[in-house]
Amino acid sequence: MQSLPFPFPVVQWQDDRVVLIDQTLLPGKLEFRRCGDIPSLCRAIVELAVRGAPAIGVAAAYGLALSWDLNRKTGRSLGRIYEAFEVDRAALAATRPTAVNLFWALDRLGKLVENLVAAGDRDAVEIGAALLAEADCVLAEDIAMCRALGQAGQELLSDTATVLTHCNAGGLATGGYGTALGVVFAAKEAGKNISVYADETRPLLQGARLTAWELADQGIDVTLLCDSAAATVLRQGKIDAVITGADRIAANGDSANKIGTYPLAVLAHRHGVPFYIAAPDSTFDPHTPDGDGIRIEERDPEEVVQFHGQLAAPPGVAAYNPAFDVTPAELITAIITDKGVFRPPYVSSLRALGPGLEPK
Amino acid sequence: MQSLPFPFPVVQWQDDRVVLIDQTLLPGKLEFRRCGDIPSLCRAIVELAVRGAPAIGVAAAYGLALSWDLNRKTGRSLGRIYEAFEVDRAALAATRPTAVNLFWALDRLGKLVENLVAAGDRDAVEIGAALLAEADCVLAEDIAMCRALGQAGQELLSDTATVLTHCNAGGLATGGYGTALGVVFAAKEAGKNISVYADETRPLLQGARLTAWELADQGIDVTLLCDSAAATVLRQGKIDAVITGADRIAANGDSANKIGTYPLAVLAHRHGVPFYIAAPDSTFDPHTPDGDGIRIEERDPEEVVQFHGQLAAPPGVAAYNPAFDVTPAELITAIITDKGVFRPPYVSSLRALGPGLEPK
Repeated sequence: MQSLPFPFPVVQWQDDRVVLIDQTLLPGKLEFRRCGDIPSLCRAIVELAVRGAPAIGVAAAYGLALSWDLNRKTGRSLGRIYEAFEVDRAALAATRPTAVNLFWALDRLGKLVENLVAAGDRDAVEIGAALLAEADCVLAEDIAMCRALGQAGQELLSDTATVLTHCNAGGLATGGYGTALGVVFAAKEAGKNISVYADETRPLLQGARLTAWELADQGIDVTLLCDSAAATVLRQGKIDAVITGADRIAANGDSANKIGTYPLAVLAHRHGVPFYIAAPDSTFDPHTPDGDGIRIEERDPEEVVQFHGQLAAPPGVAAYNPAFDVTPAELITAIITDKGVFRPPYVSSLRALGPGLEPK
Repeated sequence: MQSLPFPFPVVQWQDDRVVLIDQTLLPGKLEFRRCGDIPSLCRAIVELAVRGAPAIGVAAAYGLALSWDLNRKTGRSLGRIYEAFEVDRAALAATRPTAVNLFWALDRLGKLVENLVAAGDRDAVEIGAALLAEADCVLAEDIAMCRALGQAGQELLSDTATVLTHCNAGGLATGGYGTALGVVFAAKEAGKNISVYADETRPLLQGARLTAWELADQGIDVTLLCDSAAATVLRQGKIDAVITGADRIAANGDSANKIGTYPLAVLAHRHGVPFYIAAPDSTFDPHTPDGDGIRIEERDPEEVVQFHGQLAAPPGVAAYNPAFDVTPAELITAIITDKGVFRPPYVSSLRALGPGLEPK
């Protein structure tokens, strides 16, 4: 397979399109999905061609630049372009409910346009250029945040640490560098010899398909596990740290992440292994006081009933398929961010993330 | 699909062959595998065409009857038949290492032959008939044990209980009635309205393929879950009891069962949900003092990396595939047996199972 530059080109702006690594095809095929309109980008998000909270945020930012660009080219008035932009913004907001980064990016570019339109001194071309520059900025900031986060996190790892991770909080889940795996990449850059156990992460196998792929691609020792075998390696004392990403972190530190994260945190706690959440600023949601306020997406039961497109259960059997669970703050040893490593009690320590992230 | 009688005809003796429901083909196809020699029966056990500790015990018992029958028909002397029988007995013993029922059945029929040969007053035909009668007895006893176990266990469930189970400890895992699912079937026979959440049970999806199939076949409400979503339904308070089978129970109550049972017990404990092991006598191993002495089978990493021949991970990726884990006695609320329900401390309570099951 064609090798990729690193940080991975997860989301790019090319020839007036949003170009994504099609993650539904990995690890079998490395192909790019070129989204030339908002419906195709929404589809890419819903179908998980791009997934991972920070990567969705970046894709949504470029999506708004695309929306403006397409509507501007129709020769409409600024008012009409803005109306259409708001419709597209709502469509992008409706794709996935849990990842806060999506709404964060849509808000950020939405407010930029709102301000520029209200100021009244820019034309549609200039506003489009500002939007694209802002999307570029969202991407560049994400990579910089992941590098800072990785650096802060790698200091928690010994020279020969073994890390257990769940799902894919890697380069592919972000602008290219990764959060949980960003810590691993940063440790490698610091000369450490890190090994990783990767949960395969049913139902969609992001661990098997994506985490194993990108770690192997970067020359890091990786061993795949069924999700239910993680308890065994924790009990065997093979794991020095569990590190996962997060899709939304409430004001008290409760963290929503891929289904299966919560039981992993319970097991890590039982076996005295530190459990870390690695996430950039944009994952924090100070408006949600605790995990009870986080809406959990339920996905199609077919994802459970099928395995890689093949029917694994009797036809017509019911299935329950929550996409995320919430790990209570009490089980999280620390939250690794680009602003440093935060420890409990999170309700006070997380306020240091900045005024914008204080509870309102 | 053709409907089956209940208890399910998991292992039968037909036309001088051991006939098995081929569980590798369920739920897509209901086919019987006819084993006319020991290598094909060993293959059926290794390939999991027959699986589940009690069912393996029954298959091994009929396997020894088959061995004697085949060797007797060659016209060899009694001594030579016995030698060949012992070779076949060793081959059957080498198929799977964890399920104690396999060794229990091989010992039981082995000792019968040893005694009959030593007594010197039976010919090869008579010994063959005694062996086949003994195998029939192992099967009949298993069904009777499962019925008794189911009856004892169903008394622990309310009229509208929701049960969570892992893997398949059902009719298909036994002589036809089931252990963990035997409790559910007995509750249904007692007029209770039981619902079941079934973990799909990676890597081989016995929950999706077998448990969902046999519960649906028996008209019991079943909802399939990814293994890592079990923590969520436990936390949501949807589960009244977790019930699993066991492959081997040590003298202190530590219980080996399908990988993923241990984390389920930890989660049940955290959420105050009773965790029950359901197993017949033959699963108890008084010679193993605790879980540390239970050998855990490691199976082919390909089971994790592939599914139905489809690659789910990058080629060449390493995988760790322990087939079982050990749930410590402290997490087991009770052990449901055909002799009643046993509570901690198991090291003393389990002795009531009988003189043969006391530690030696």
